[in-house]
Amino acid sequence: MRIFVINPNSSVSITDHLRETLNKIKRSDCELTVVCPDHGPVSIESAYDETLAAYHMMPLVKKANDEKYDAIVIACFSDPGLDSAKEISQIPVIGIEESTLHVAAMLGHKFSVMTGMSRRIPTREWHAVLRGVQGSYASSPALNMSVIEMDQDPVKAKTRIIAAARKAVEEDRAEVIVLGCAGLAGYSKDIEDELGVVVLDPSAVALKVAEAIVDLGLRHSKAGRFSYPPKKEIK
Amino acid sequence: MRIFVINPNSSVSITDHLRETLNKIKRSDCELTVVCPDHGPVSIESAYDETLAAYHMMPLVKKANDEKYDAIVIACFSDPGLDSAKEISQIPVIGIEESTLHVAAMLGHKFSVMTGMSRRIPTREWHAVLRGVQGSYASSPALNMSVIEMDQDPVKAKTRIIAAARKAVEEDRAEVIVLGCAGLAGYSKDIEDELGVVVLDPSAVALKVAEAIVDLGLRHSKAGRFSYPPKKEIK
Amino acid sequence: MRIFVINPNSSVSITDHLRETLNKIKRSDCELTVVCPDHGPVSIESAYDETLAAYHMMPLVKKANDEKYDAIVIACFSDPGLDSAKEISQIPVIGIEESTLHVAAMLGHKFSVMTGMSRRIPTREWHAVLRGVQGSYASSPALNMSVIEMDQDPVKAKTRIIAAARKAVEEDRAEVIVLGCAGLAGYSKDIEDELGVVVLDPSAVALKVAEAIVDLGLRHSKAGRFSYPPKKEIK
Amino acid sequence: MRIFVINPNSSVSITDHLRETLNKIKRSDCELTVVCPDHGPVSIESAYDETLAAYHMMPLVKKANDEKYDAIVIACFSDPGLDSAKEISQIPVIGIEESTLHVAAMLGHKFSVMTGMSRRIPTREWHAVLRGVQGSYASSPALNMSVIEMDQDPVKAKTRIIAAARKAVEEDRAEVIVLGCAGLAGYSKDIEDELGVVVLDPSAVALKVAEAIVDLGLRHSKAGRFSYPPKKEIK
Amino acid sequence: MRIFVINPNSSVSITDHLRETLNKIKRSDCELTVVCPDHGPVSIESAYDETLAAYHMMPLVKKANDEKYDAIVIACFSDPGLDSAKEISQIPVIGIEESTLHVAAMLGHKFSVMTGMSRRIPTREWHAVLRGVQGSYASSPALNMSVIEMDQDPVKAKTRIIAAARKAVEEDRAEVIVLGCAGLAGYSKDIEDELGVVVLDPSAVALKVAEAIVDLGLRHSKAGRFSYPPKKEIK
Amino acid sequence: MRIFVINPNSSVSITDHLRETLNKIKRSDCELTVVCPDHGPVSIESAYDETLAAYHMMPLVKKANDEKYDAIVIACFSDPGLDSAKEISQIPVIGIEESTLHVAAMLGHKFSVMTGMSRRIPTREWHAVLRGVQGSYASSPALNMSVIEMDQDPVKAKTRIIAAARKAVEEDRAEVIVLGCAGLAGYSKDIEDELGVVVLDPSAVALKVAEAIVDLGLRHSKAGRFSYPPKKEIK
Repeated sequence: MRIFVINPNSSVSITDHLRETLNKIKRSDCELTVVCPDHGPVSIESAYDETLAAYHMMPLVKKANDEKYDAIVIACFSDPGLDSAKEISQIPVIGIEESTLHVAAMLGHKFSVMTGMSRRIPTREWHAVLRGVQGSYASSPALNMSVIEMDQDPVKAKTRIIAAARKAVEEDRAEVIVLGCAGLAGYSKDIEDELGVVVLDPSAVALKVAEAIVDLGLRHSKAGRFSYPPKKEIK
Repeated sequence: MRIFVINPNSSVSITDHLRETLNKIKRSDCELTVVCPDHGPVSIESAYDETLAAYHMMPLVKKANDEKYDAIVIACFSDPGLDSAKEISQIPVIGIEESTLHVAAMLGHKFSVMTGMSRRIPTREWHAVLRGVQGSYASSPALNMSVIEMDQDPVKAKTRIIAAARKAVEEDRAEVIVLGCAGLAGYSKDIEDELGVVVLDPSAVALKVAEAIVDLGLRHSKAGRFSYPPKKEIK
Repeated sequence: MRIFVINPNSSVSITDHLRETLNKIKRSDCELTVVCPDHGPVSIESAYDETLAAYHMMPLVKKANDEKYDAIVIACFSDPGLDSAKEISQIPVIGIEESTLHVAAMLGHKFSVMTGMSRRIPTREWHAVLRGVQGSYASSPALNMSVIEMDQDPVKAKTRIIAAARKAVEEDRAEVIVLGCAGLAGYSKDIEDELGVVVLDPSAVALKVAEAIVDLGLRHSKAGRFSYPPKKEIK
Repeated sequence: MRIFVINPNSSVSITDHLRETLNKIKRSDCELTVVCPDHGPVSIESAYDETLAAYHMMPLVKKANDEKYDAIVIACFSDPGLDSAKEISQIPVIGIEESTLHVAAMLGHKFSVMTGMSRRIPTREWHAVLRGVQGSYASSPALNMSVIEMDQDPVKAKTRIIAAARKAVEEDRAEVIVLGCAGLAGYSKDIEDELGVVVLDPSAVALKVAEAIVDLGLRHSKAGRFSYPPKKEIK
Repeated sequence: MRIFVINPNSSVSITDHLRETLNKIKRSDCELTVVCPDHGPVSIESAYDETLAAYHMMPLVKKANDEKYDAIVIACFSDPGLDSAKEISQIPVIGIEESTLHVAAMLGHKFSVMTGMSRRIPTREWHAVLRGVQGSYASSPALNMSVIEMDQDPVKAKTRIIAAARKAVEEDRAEVIVLGCAGLAGYSKDIEDELGVVVLDPSAVALKVAEAIVDLGLRHSKAGRFSYPPKKEIK
Repeated sequence: MRIFVINPNSSVSITDHLRETLNKIKRSDCELTVVCPDHGPVSIESAYDETLAAYHMMPLVKKANDEKYDAIVIACFSDPGLDSAKEISQIPVIGIEESTLHVAAMLGHKFSVMTGMSRRIPTREWHAVLRGVQGSYASSPALNMSVIEMDQDPVKAKTRIIAAARKAVEEDRAEVIVLGCAGLAGYSKDIEDELGVVVLDPSAVALKVAEAIVDLGLRHSKAGRFSYPPKKEIK
């Protein structure tokens, strides 16, 4: 099977890193193409960033359909443009937030979603409602570090990540930790070792869900919400 | 006060019609600018259309801020780009869906949202959740006519509209009818006369809510969900 | 337009103060009559107080209808007698809680409602459900001061108010603060300056919503929940 | 034990009938006093009726406390003044709606509440939310007959009642039928025989719950929502 | 009336103690049989324990039906096998959790359920949803002591119980405390005296609800969810 | 990887059929063991059947752990004993209902679960709540045929299945159909062809989710709800 992975931000280095990571865990019968749009923000940390990224991602969704890929994975935790992509796509489209939150809900009583900056906590809250899993949502602890700061001071980052995850486990009774931010991707083993809870890396989860959906011959329903958009003039 | 109204689709004729309508009902101390983006879809009937429209709308939101307007009204019933617009705006941004659904919730036990095509019923359902008013949402009856068809056969349109509203009132116990589609704008009087319920025209409601918000010196909170996006490179 | 404002408690001095405040912010084309019932409790701090106040308020609702006012505002934050008033009224009736909570839900991700005594926190909680906005309700911090104490020691009051609001913002992530108690009315500017969030004064919000509803030619639906009560013998 | 039953409407004949009915089913160690207020509406079919009835009921609640009864039952299905009565009462206060809906939720997957006129269906819906049992609420079928009509044409009434209950069972999948209206009290056996579901008569259920609560030495908590109202001037 | 009480764990001493306690509070016209299964776990502290206990309880449910008892009480706070027991029983089956949570919801704004070990907090949370009373659920404070430890060090137990209940009252605003664990049964008076809230002992509440249900001639509905299981081969 | 599939009913022929079906769709690197308990009901159509089946399944869960399988799939749509199995298992346990409902929620706006007899509709409803996906649950249409009848009259069965699915799609707006009953397993292609919606076969979905979970090195969290049961005497 051939899976087309779109990193919705325009950062080539993040895309390269994602390609490398996913190629290590893909099934042997799975071939990956991992790309990002030429335009748009280099990281996605606001609804505004999502609006720009979703727009520039649309041609890539069409390309994956035209080139007969078996599935698309959208690899940004807020799933920008997910509904739009499902509408214009006849192949399955897997958002990493949507798929990871549903898997998290299966693996424990409640999950917490780690995030970088506290301004995104409301987004995590209403997305838990949007994805239909609010009953399993515990909290969204913020590190109050930007992705760049995490890169520059990994010792401080690790300390803050463990502390935030511990708070989620002890105070909010999270049983599963979701790493809802690219900068957190390398720390899952540390959290598991320290706290004894399950830790989910969204890109990895989404890829495996995509492989399973393709294996099953499934896609999203085209019968209602995700039916093809009406044809019309686009100025 | 000066209010900047953005029609998110790119249709000049719809924009002209909206300008004319709103100028009739604005307060005498209120000055309106009603515009649409140069690019994007000429009507908005899908998430994909919303993604394109939201992108092209963003420069207009900035322009309204730069030119020191007192408020922005986004005049498409799905409120495309509303969160993004609030983030980048220091003046209040009023979505016609958001404001109308909250007013509808005040005026009756349950409301129904009339829509053109049945493919948008799921959108109406999850937007009721998104806007936080699902407890007052009764249903979303569809006419199964496109806007163009409504234009071409107004007699058929009127018959269908009355029938759909009657079904909402009698079967779903709607007490308030929201005209969730531009093509329905002219029929509120007919529905009120025929069925004795309250009918809301979203653009009008949003304009009056905007005037009230400006009068009160309020805007959306910039303290969390709608704080300014982090500065970053946009390719 | 002519708007009839009912202060449901029987305090003439509070009514005078309310009249003065609202006259400063009303539209120039709006004429206000601000009254209170002759009987009933001088302040409303319990369901029992609400039961007494609602009863004594009913003749005033009828009077406003008989004298052809354009709208009624009920100016006590618990909206006592609101459903009854809507039933017996053919002109729109605006409760300050109902209207303010819906506006608060539009202006931020979550709001907190400041209250005087902690015994009323449960009331604030179930009223958030009753008004249909529980998804946006963050918390209800109490000052543990009666209205009389606030009057007598304004320095202590201000200190407590800022502290309670800060707790709502920092711990409960409130983005909007609603002043759910008459004694708090003078402190909105202090809270905004100190905490950078939006602060709503319910009486002011309700008046502006009433003006907007009158402008739109709307009222509550008389088709179901708020239809006229059946005629019957009242002993 | 001594239980004080308040019929909140002012109808002496309904009160006499209630006294007779409850005396047949009370425990032998239970003594009943069944009264109604001298003033207020003779039946309760609107929020306005509830407002009047709640006011006139309050002195009776105080009297039951002064005379050291063991519990109070409020015998109108909308539970008018229930919160207020709990506040001013140190003995337990049992509303017939509140107690019956909780018992109904224990006895089947979903219950339906029969009502007289369709204008009260919204009341039944939001009271299911208010009483915290909306997850078990199926529907509220209306007979579209007033209590007087039921009295005058019992054959027609019985036909309509069976038909409405059948609809609730077959279409809304109700497993328990609650007779939410005084005029329906005599028909429970017919519905059970015809449809094989459980039928609850609210006054009877409330009396038995009151006996159980007294036996247990319990009352409502006075620690928060139902704490005594602050003392104050009542004009 | 004759009521059959099943202690689902296999501990004879706990069963003896339960028999003694309930015989003190039963009505004089009520005759109790209190038994436990011969097999299964001696206490119930996990879903696994519940699975074993529910299986061994089923013959006792049949026996109570065969011997024409008037009602069954299942006396373990998690209500193991409650749905199954209702299906195979034509007499009413009262679970102590189900009945106590509904009574708790009537007696205060919110209740907290005391539990022994923190591993059962998630069970308390989802059972509040399962029983349909999540709107009244405040929290579930854990003592972090096993039942055996409580027995061995009652002074420590009492200290922890008061502390946990105080936290529920002060931080979670519980107005009613439910003793959701057998080891807590003796401490209700201490909690009431110390904290001024209502405390519920589930076995006692369930017995009184059972007496009331029998008095009313009611049982659970056999029309849907609890209809008799289809006959089939059991290997 | 080695996956251990438990058919919780005791029917050898159903187990043989399941083994054959799953072996056709498993990954080449996956080895399946498909078994059923020696005792218990031959089919599962009630809570009582579930109670018996869950008990007899527990030794098989232990065996799969002892023999170092990589995952367990429980292959009955009601997921009997799922929580208990997770507690006593250190390897992941996948219920076919839980996994299928979460996948269904990802693939369309709303799903409907087909069931055999109408007595199980309430089970489908509360399990949608239990699994945390009630926001995506549309309905549960019943065929009113037993599994045996479906076997004996496949022409009638097919007619009823298509009719029930069509009703779910047209009236309840289901976009995804879940075959919530073993007897329905062969008809997915017919429904897809006739109605153009996505159809899920739960056993297949669960197997693929299990493969994905094993690939990811995940299991359910052992930190709270699913931690190992306390050791104790089992009589």
